[in-house]
Amino acid sequence: MTTRVIKDTALLAMADALEAGSAEILSANTIDVDAARAGGTSEDIIDRLSLDAQRVRAMADGLRDIAALPDPVGEVVRGSTLPNGLQLQQIRVPMGVIGMIYEGRPNVTADAAAICLKAGSAVLLRGSSSASASNTAIIDIMRAALAGVGLPADAIQQIPADHRSSATHLMQARGLVDLVIPRGGAGLIKAVVEESTVPVIETGVGNCHVYVDADADLDMALDIVVNAKTQRTSVCNAAESLLVHKSVADVFVPRVVAALQQRGVTIHGDPAFRAVNRDVVAATDDDYALEYLSLDISARVVESIDEAIAHIRKFSSGHTEAIVTSSLAASRRFAVGVDSAAVMINASTRFTDGGEFGFGAEIGISTQKLHARGPMGLTEMTTTTYVVTGSGQVR
Amino acid sequence: MTTRVIKDTALLAMADALEAGSAEILSANTIDVDAARAGGTSEDIIDRLSLDAQRVRAMADGLRDIAALPDPVGEVVRGSTLPNGLQLQQIRVPMGVIGMIYEGRPNVTADAAAICLKAGSAVLLRGSSSASASNTAIIDIMRAALAGVGLPADAIQQIPADHRSSATHLMQARGLVDLVIPRGGAGLIKAVVEESTVPVIETGVGNCHVYVDADADLDMALDIVVNAKTQRTSVCNAAESLLVHKSVADVFVPRVVAALQQRGVTIHGDPAFRAVNRDVVAATDDDYALEYLSLDISARVVESIDEAIAHIRKFSSGHTEAIVTSSLAASRRFAVGVDSAAVMINASTRFTDGGEFGFGAEIGISTQKLHARGPMGLTEMTTTTYVVTGSGQVR
Repeated sequence: MTTRVIKDTALLAMADALEAGSAEILSANTIDVDAARAGGTSEDIIDRLSLDAQRVRAMADGLRDIAALPDPVGEVVRGSTLPNGLQLQQIRVPMGVIGMIYEGRPNVTADAAAICLKAGSAVLLRGSSSASASNTAIIDIMRAALAGVGLPADAIQQIPADHRSSATHLMQARGLVDLVIPRGGAGLIKAVVEESTVPVIETGVGNCHVYVDADADLDMALDIVVNAKTQRTSVCNAAESLLVHKSVADVFVPRVVAALQQRGVTIHGDPAFRAVNRDVVAATDDDYALEYLSLDISARVVESIDEAIAHIRKFSSGHTEAIVTSSLAASRRFAVGVDSAAVMINASTRFTDGGEFGFGAEIGISTQKLHARGPMGLTEMTTTTYVVTGSGQVR
Repeated sequence: MTTRVIKDTALLAMADALEAGSAEILSANTIDVDAARAGGTSEDIIDRLSLDAQRVRAMADGLRDIAALPDPVGEVVRGSTLPNGLQLQQIRVPMGVIGMIYEGRPNVTADAAAICLKAGSAVLLRGSSSASASNTAIIDIMRAALAGVGLPADAIQQIPADHRSSATHLMQARGLVDLVIPRGGAGLIKAVVEESTVPVIETGVGNCHVYVDADADLDMALDIVVNAKTQRTSVCNAAESLLVHKSVADVFVPRVVAALQQRGVTIHGDPAFRAVNRDVVAATDDDYALEYLSLDISARVVESIDEAIAHIRKFSSGHTEAIVTSSLAASRRFAVGVDSAAVMINASTRFTDGGEFGFGAEIGISTQKLHARGPMGLTEMTTTTYVVTGSGQVR
């Protein structure tokens, strides 16, 4: 078992090597960015792809942060002495080999490699072909740093991104790969879930709701809706849908429409919302099912908290739902009724995040129920084994 | 949320109803047993299929035992107050809908229904067509008991077993079913893992090893090998393979061969084992990979503990491996080196069991790394959600 000291030494060496190799990384990144621009890629996506000295430094600092976190491996999850004298311990151990299939940002490459290394696993990185040169530069530097501290360079390996089939091979390497984590848009995640024979953790699709209850503090509700929708629109924990209890609709709907429109939000609303002004467009069921990731929000008035819960159970992706209410009974009913990874009571959906939750590092946010649900930190990247110590016990 | 009181009332009512309906269950069972006998089914399998008054009573008592266990739902797994005042709680909640696909014994029907009910989930039971009449009788009685205490009868549902396709539909009901658990032979489990798009927990295939180290107490080793192989051969935690360190082989191999042969065990051995007598047959790699579930064991002498670990990593199904040693260093090396759900140090492999571990009830033994590894009790049948309570926090 590789001790924490060795793993942290490797992480710090990798961080230093990334900073020292900044010029090399940036020159590789230029190749990717030039190719993307030549191919007519949108500036939005080019921004995610682009690195500069500051972003490389941030990548290195991310690795140093992971080195500072406690080692999840070796934690005794439970233990007891059985009636026959056997000593039972359930101990956290590495997963083994983790495959990452991801899009866009090259910083995911360093981040995912560091989290898997700290959790004691080898990682197979299958990034986007658009970031291929950047990823190769980053991975080569990290591998050299690993070897430099005496760890096998192959603990971090790049899967070539030039053919789609390389992702398929990774997803179907059952028995060789213990876990595949897709990170990216809904299309990528759906494809991985459907094609993979290796166990998968679904991450990130967030059709998050804010429900403003009959007993809501309406000033608080306005702050939370505006923050959840507009503070950052491209993230999975941004709000995509607003539900308002009919008893506060007359007062609240005009206020929230004004506040959102002032910030450039397009509201896709039901008749109650559309009655406010002509800029509210008609919402369809497709709108209620959509993760916009933009300055758009779907909105409707509901008859009751139960109708709100039923709407959420029908349309949600199971990521995060918020309720604004001063009623304890309503908050409990909502928390039990919706079936999502996280429930925010009088707080913005934007708080569902490994950093905000105090996990230090985050590999993604699981929207499935098996193994891990919600933000996944180092602990969620491990498995456990039972070690039973006896003195010759037989049955 | 259904409270523990209601769930336990239902479980006790189901237990009473099963006992009261014993005649009805036994008459249905006669139909299954007669059909099996007419079809030429082996007596071994007919024994597993057969019920009598005592087995029905044991089934009812199993439900009463589950009623006595603590409720896993509602447990606060972790909790803290974040720097911004948000109160974070990770709470255990029901999985939702669990599908069981299983073979053989009708008692699994009652057992699986009770565990899922106690864990707050609905269950879809897809048993073997050979036990169809028995399962229908048991399920009808349990459903009536559920309705009698005011719970929805549909919390326990039977999936017809008359077509293979009903199992396929269950495995592919992604979005409707949260988890599928196959219980049965290696063929069934492999088929479910490969065909399912619903998340699966693999259970039960056990190619378990006993390694007798250079520093073993050889009397203890003999007891453990004999117990692990012969105490019950048809179970997944029985030993299927024996590895002996070369430095004790001269003394131990003849002793263990004699002890096993005396109990009717056929040894499939390497040349060192075959040198003892002619009744030891030659082992192939196929033998080393096999879960015999019978009075057979594969056996070989290894050069070192590392060769034993390498052999186990190559051939094991990841269930349980035992080491017999008085060396602390060897026990640690073995526990870290093998990659299995459970490691027994100086104890029989037969102890990997929910009952032995003190979990009360067991739905199976997971040999996968995701979600649950080793014996799965009520806790492993749940998921968690984060409930975050604030006073208007935004980012």
